[in-house]
Amino acid sequence: MPERAVCLVSGGLDSATCLAWARRQGWECYALSFDYGQRHRQELEAAARVAAAIGAERHVTARIDLRQFGGSALTAEINVPKHHSVEEMGQGIPITYVPARNTIFLSFALAWAETLGAGHVVIGVNAIDYSGYPDCRPEYVAAFERMANLATRAGVEGNTPLRIHTPLIELSKSGIIRLGVDLRVDFSLTRSCYDPSPDGHACGACDSCLLRLRGFADAGLPDPLAYVDR
Amino acid sequence: MPERAVCLVSGGLDSATCLAWARRQGWECYALSFDYGQRHRQELEAAARVAAAIGAERHVTARIDLRQFGGSALTAEINVPKHHSVEEMGQGIPITYVPARNTIFLSFALAWAETLGAGHVVIGVNAIDYSGYPDCRPEYVAAFERMANLATRAGVEGNTPLRIHTPLIELSKSGIIRLGVDLRVDFSLTRSCYDPSPDGHACGACDSCLLRLRGFADAGLPDPLAYVDR
Repeated sequence: MPERAVCLVSGGLDSATCLAWARRQGWECYALSFDYGQRHRQELEAAARVAAAIGAERHVTARIDLRQFGGSALTAEINVPKHHSVEEMGQGIPITYVPARNTIFLSFALAWAETLGAGHVVIGVNAIDYSGYPDCRPEYVAAFERMANLATRAGVEGNTPLRIHTPLIELSKSGIIRLGVDLRVDFSLTRSCYDPSPDGHACGACDSCLLRLRGFADAGLPDPLAYVDR
Repeated sequence: MPERAVCLVSGGLDSATCLAWARRQGWECYALSFDYGQRHRQELEAAARVAAAIGAERHVTARIDLRQFGGSALTAEINVPKHHSVEEMGQGIPITYVPARNTIFLSFALAWAETLGAGHVVIGVNAIDYSGYPDCRPEYVAAFERMANLATRAGVEGNTPLRIHTPLIELSKSGIIRLGVDLRVDFSLTRSCYDPSPDGHACGACDSCLLRLRGFADAGLPDPLAYVDR
């Protein structure tokens, strides 16, 4: 029986590359997305396309409501910041930061992994282009893994421990794109924009678009997505 | 300005005692409950009563769906195990264990705490009468606290660290009941049964009822709740 992995899939190019990486390990992959009231709901449709295209065994979207806690441009009625270049982006933790988001996502992944008997969780966090999010750092992921192995039956009964894999953590955006190309990811299925137009065009000016565009430029590859005229 | 605390409130007597303990510290308390498809929905009504009676600043019920992951008698269609005494209860991790439940609950508490600027999270876990749940052990709570302080702005920006408080962790059930009485908790507002009758009577035979009944007996106090005739 193949080993099982729970893979967090957002619909973006990072998590699509992670899912393809997990498939390449030979793991049976269970794709997990979150409907957390995000403004960019096109992500969820992209996540379903990506999971199907890359061959996930199953795709589940967990509905959670972070809006009642407030506090982020991605879930509340705050304008998404726009810039003309990566250099112009703010320093420090951006207002698009969602409190404890990766901790909540990994906690759900942990619950599903325990139910499935999966020994692997894969998350596309990245410490290079992470835009100042505290929960994208290696020391955070290591602390989560340690906690997870004390939280579950595996920790008590001495079964196989859970590993949290972060195959992108040391890669630049262009490195992620090159890895995805190697793994034959169809990036036209992915979505990255925090603030797409109603007809589905990416804004080209939010932090996520700027990092994506620079990644494709640095990799010397065209981005297959449509962007609004600026 | 008083310090703020997020207090997990289930509607049971343990978390009611925790909330009263947190109020006694002088903290402004934000009560957090979860609607996770539990069969014993009377808990949620009890949680709202308890939060109001003990003086929480606000009470939020977060809706999360663990049923799609399966795997527990409390959320799936498995019969709740019944016994005649505490001694007859099973050893090891019971089938009422919900995978990663406390990790998910604490993750939401962490998100709200960060949004509120709260430096305290209070959870009524108990290592004595914990019935074999791995995520009720002190080493688990310590690992979560460490992870939480790497996950958030506090960890990056060097603000006040978050403390996870477990005021009941070393207490027996009778010790918890005595503490609650000292703190003037009205235990008639609480609910503990995993499988109450339609008219709201506790079954008196699930693990949770058996522990509660023995706790009141050991404390030499009457349980104010109504139980079904057996």
